[in-house]
Amino acid sequence: MSLQVHFYRLQSSEFADELKSLLDEDINITIGSEIPTPADYEILIYPTPSKAWLEASPNLRAVVVPWAGVPEETRGLMVDYPQISIHNLHHNNFNTAELGFALLLSAAKFIVPMDQALRKNDWTPRYQQTKAIMLRGRTALILGFGEIGQALGAYCLGLGMNVIATKKHPEQYQGELNVKIFSDNQLHDLLPKADVLLIALPLTEETEDLIGEEEIMAMPKGSILVNIGRGPIVNQHALYAALKSGHLRSAGSDVWYHYPESKEARTDTPPADLPFGELENFVLSPHRGGMVEEVEHQRAHALAALLNAANRDQPIPNKVDLKAGY
Amino acid sequence: MSLQVHFYRLQSSEFADELKSLLDEDINITIGSEIPTPADYEILIYPTPSKAWLEASPNLRAVVVPWAGVPEETRGLMVDYPQISIHNLHHNNFNTAELGFALLLSAAKFIVPMDQALRKNDWTPRYQQTKAIMLRGRTALILGFGEIGQALGAYCLGLGMNVIATKKHPEQYQGELNVKIFSDNQLHDLLPKADVLLIALPLTEETEDLIGEEEIMAMPKGSILVNIGRGPIVNQHALYAALKSGHLRSAGSDVWYHYPESKEARTDTPPADLPFGELENFVLSPHRGGMVEEVEHQRAHALAALLNAANRDQPIPNKVDLKAGY
Repeated sequence: MSLQVHFYRLQSSEFADELKSLLDEDINITIGSEIPTPADYEILIYPTPSKAWLEASPNLRAVVVPWAGVPEETRGLMVDYPQISIHNLHHNNFNTAELGFALLLSAAKFIVPMDQALRKNDWTPRYQQTKAIMLRGRTALILGFGEIGQALGAYCLGLGMNVIATKKHPEQYQGELNVKIFSDNQLHDLLPKADVLLIALPLTEETEDLIGEEEIMAMPKGSILVNIGRGPIVNQHALYAALKSGHLRSAGSDVWYHYPESKEARTDTPPADLPFGELENFVLSPHRGGMVEEVEHQRAHALAALLNAANRDQPIPNKVDLKAGY
Repeated sequence: MSLQVHFYRLQSSEFADELKSLLDEDINITIGSEIPTPADYEILIYPTPSKAWLEASPNLRAVVVPWAGVPEETRGLMVDYPQISIHNLHHNNFNTAELGFALLLSAAKFIVPMDQALRKNDWTPRYQQTKAIMLRGRTALILGFGEIGQALGAYCLGLGMNVIATKKHPEQYQGELNVKIFSDNQLHDLLPKADVLLIALPLTEETEDLIGEEEIMAMPKGSILVNIGRGPIVNQHALYAALKSGHLRSAGSDVWYHYPESKEARTDTPPADLPFGELENFVLSPHRGGMVEEVEHQRAHALAALLNAANRDQPIPNKVDLKAGY
């Protein structure tokens, strides 16, 4: 019996063509925004399925969100369908980790203000006492040691940094990186060691406002913070104050407190309540995460790998734990 | 017999104190801008000694330039004193390699234009086709595989890139990095493989104008160039044209074609003949190389290690090959 897959809507026909070229030949894939007849799909690729979609096919065993994360409405709906597993794609993880690492290096080397000055033919920063530091030999604390955190760990090790990390279940780490992994309830013991704090956590009830004034002040003076998790994990007032006072040498963030709510608002939405854009020691990135030129190819490969695994009766990768939220 | 050292001038008394605290106790060090009496120094720390300084002490066997490189006037003078070896300091190498790596990541991820837009509350780059790419899996070609090039190689490997390199004498590389090293006359065969070209060469007759239009066009379309060697190694017209046309996706440079010639000129010296500062896909850095906050501590440690080696009758590190120029 060949695997029946339905793909709700479609980015582009190039994407469909590439996906099909990567799938096992015996996979049957239908594509469209209407429930197909007969509704016999075993796997539904749809980030926000309705009840009707979940109930139409008696064969449905897995829903795939074709990106990272799971929309909240889908998480809420799926708890009523425990027999249907939910999966997502991790193809963005290396892209996102690279962006976080780029923010760290930009923050540590003050790339943006130096660039802006020299564009105006101004060399004065070259002759002033610099705030840039060497990262080699310093300690990075990574909060969240999932795939993105692990990639960040590898990059920091490559740079000659010491790396420590927190993870909800440290014992679950099976990799071979030279990283000491602690339970996330040891955070407060670890912060004083963090020359660099890299946040790669999902936003949950436990992580919201996790890094506030107390936590930032527990970091060494002159340390660096980079957030690629979600904005509200870091208290924006505490972050702004520490950058302003210099307790934090610098910081970078790809994640924010406010987002454009309409197309028109895209050119004029302050990302936070505080004027982070006035700070020279802060690198701002508009929640790009894994956005790279080749991302659709990466997505097609990741989706094909997932469907091929299902077709070969292997466990379907990237099962989401609905309770944990990721 | 204790080692006699003279240090011409001095950055600061903190530097002298730190240096002395790191030296073997039996080293005799004099400090000042006049030839000491008696002139019995065996090692002279002085970037640009005159003939008088070289001839005053019959015991002089080594001159130390307390930074990277050797001033041209000193190189010219020292060929007449083959019995006196010349040494410099490499404490900046990791700093410089980190800066080059930061420029690469900023260029690959378009950190600067994204930051500048969001500072103006403009999120539109988030919703446009991006030119950012993933570096993992791509190939970096490093020109110049000395200490800086090797550090860059380690960082690129940490990111999951493939790394190839050129070196004047490939057989001299003794390290263990997973890097294929070629002779520098194989450059033209290697350029078509270079998704990223990292230039960590000294400026010599052979390297001036090494990377011109032909070489850049031999690189794949959409590749990235980073120069932390010296400006004139890359032809500025060819570089500008390739960035403008998009043949090069992006580039970064810490090294330039014009430098401020006076203190007054520091706020208004264009770094090149062409308006690189108008390009969004170029990251400009004002020749900072290894400038980091802790650099004087690093310098003191490197200088002390060199003097202690001489005192212990070990070979003095970092001997400069005057013919090669580095």
